[in-house]
Amino acid sequence: MSPKPRGTPVSAVTITNTAEIQALLDKVAGLDQTAGNPRIKAIVRRLVENICQAIDDFDVNESEFWLALNFLQGGAGELGLWAAGLGLEHFLDVRMDAIDVADGISGVTPRTIEGPLHVKGAPLSKREARLDDGTESGDILVMTGQVRDTEGRPVPGAIVDVWHANTLGNYSHFDPSQSTFNNRGRIETDGEGRYRFRSIVPSGYACPPGGSTERLLDQLGRHGRRPAHVHFFVTAPGFRHLTTQINIDGDPYLHDDFAYATREELIPAVTWIENPAAISAAGLDTPFKAINFDFQIAATAGEGEMASDRPRAAA
Amino acid sequence: MSPKPRGTPVSAVTITNTAEIQALLDKVAGLDQTAGNPRIKAIVRRLVENICQAIDDFDVNESEFWLALNFLQGGAGELGLWAAGLGLEHFLDVRMDAIDVADGISGVTPRTIEGPLHVKGAPLSKREARLDDGTESGDILVMTGQVRDTEGRPVPGAIVDVWHANTLGNYSHFDPSQSTFNNRGRIETDGEGRYRFRSIVPSGYACPPGGSTERLLDQLGRHGRRPAHVHFFVTAPGFRHLTTQINIDGDPYLHDDFAYATREELIPAVTWIENPAAISAAGLDTPFKAINFDFQIAATAGEGEMASDRPRAAA
Repeated sequence: MSPKPRGTPVSAVTITNTAEIQALLDKVAGLDQTAGNPRIKAIVRRLVENICQAIDDFDVNESEFWLALNFLQGGAGELGLWAAGLGLEHFLDVRMDAIDVADGISGVTPRTIEGPLHVKGAPLSKREARLDDGTESGDILVMTGQVRDTEGRPVPGAIVDVWHANTLGNYSHFDPSQSTFNNRGRIETDGEGRYRFRSIVPSGYACPPGGSTERLLDQLGRHGRRPAHVHFFVTAPGFRHLTTQINIDGDPYLHDDFAYATREELIPAVTWIENPAAISAAGLDTPFKAINFDFQIAATAGEGEMASDRPRAAA
Repeated sequence: MSPKPRGTPVSAVTITNTAEIQALLDKVAGLDQTAGNPRIKAIVRRLVENICQAIDDFDVNESEFWLALNFLQGGAGELGLWAAGLGLEHFLDVRMDAIDVADGISGVTPRTIEGPLHVKGAPLSKREARLDDGTESGDILVMTGQVRDTEGRPVPGAIVDVWHANTLGNYSHFDPSQSTFNNRGRIETDGEGRYRFRSIVPSGYACPPGGSTERLLDQLGRHGRRPAHVHFFVTAPGFRHLTTQINIDGDPYLHDDFAYATREELIPAVTWIENPAAISAAGLDTPFKAINFDFQIAATAGEGEMASDRPRAAA
């Protein structure tokens, strides 16, 4: 059965607020049990009640419920993309921004979503690196910049962990046709906080064709495309972890990212360098695209805030 | 990171009701797009907002969010058991009961949850059947009864589709050590609406050890046990589909079912038959347990209500 084309909530029968269902929810969440985790109990109770209330309000029938559950079950392998596409990953960013404001933290590079495609342990080099393995032809990207603290002082010894897609929009490790750690690397800043890397300008990409994310977005009338971008973790002892991205200016999806990750402060200018002396000075022999982007990170009192302990791939 | 042991909602930073997030939710649900399914858009918008509000209210941090998402992703194979254990399957029953009351339907056998273990196409026989394959020793169960309409009239030609666990609490098809359709069968009622089957008294069971349902219930301080029971679909042309179960009286979990499926009207008396003449009349040579249970089903104006089109196994 296809979901019924009903619109706004119209159900005549709502039972979630009855004493019977409220008592059921208390039992479901284990509120009458001494064992277990009180925080998880409280959150589970809330979310299960939310589902019951939605069933009531939208008059969801049995077939629709099982259709949805089965869709979630079969498509769960893409839940990381669901979290991006449903705006939840961006929501967490906006919320951490608001917490920063409440905590009086400012002058830092805006965070934006990590996405599910980081791989731990990319090659580490000092000051500069080449990220692409040389097998792809495409515009060369040279990206340079400085890591600074919120007072503008350079941060030597910071690690700039970079990862991006190839010209087909695919990531090494998840795309087995690429070499290990292609378009991935970690660069340690020099005494003046500087980093530099050479790579290939990445392309944007779309959710996997026929996957659960694409099928869900189809029902919402949405596309699953991301503009071209480069991911970063920026870390240093005594500083908060920064998770961010820059977008490649000019991408047609620049302001229509299915994951809502684009932020105005994260769209640096892209300069086409064709002056022979500049090309030579960059160690290249063809024109290339140059991006300069500095990161500002916030000091912490303690060991430095870590990245979330979201599960991540390792090569 | 383990979830933080916070209790009631305490967050100082709540952003879900800001114009920024409300606009994000509208975009997430595709409300600004003409394509897609309006009903799915409305329900997705509600559920995503519910998640955002819970993150706000419980001050869920990034690590907790990804821990939960990863738990759901890894454990999604058991979502059918989650729906039972989180009371959602029972909630749907209570809601359909309330809709019946609103529609003036009464005098029917109470429905209760289907569970995820039905298998289509079990052997069909007239009037009576033996369900167990004879390989297990255990108390013999002889169950008899009549299918009637809400006026008390017999329903000839009704199909009583029965399935139950073995003495270890396992179901054929899902337990590959059992023969195909062991403890499963479909019986067509005779001219007086009667059915009869012989089988082995089933045992209760628990959620799979170490599985995601058990791990979730552990956090809620709950067990994952079900009392012994026998499942039924009862169908007939011109009648509504009935999904129900009977419990085996005396089970220690009779009123502590993790799936909340026990209903007082569904606990028939179990009679221990040891009179030699009665044993012989039943076609047996050892004492056995007898249950008599009649089903009342409601007529429909049309073709008869079908079971939900929940995905089901087929052998």
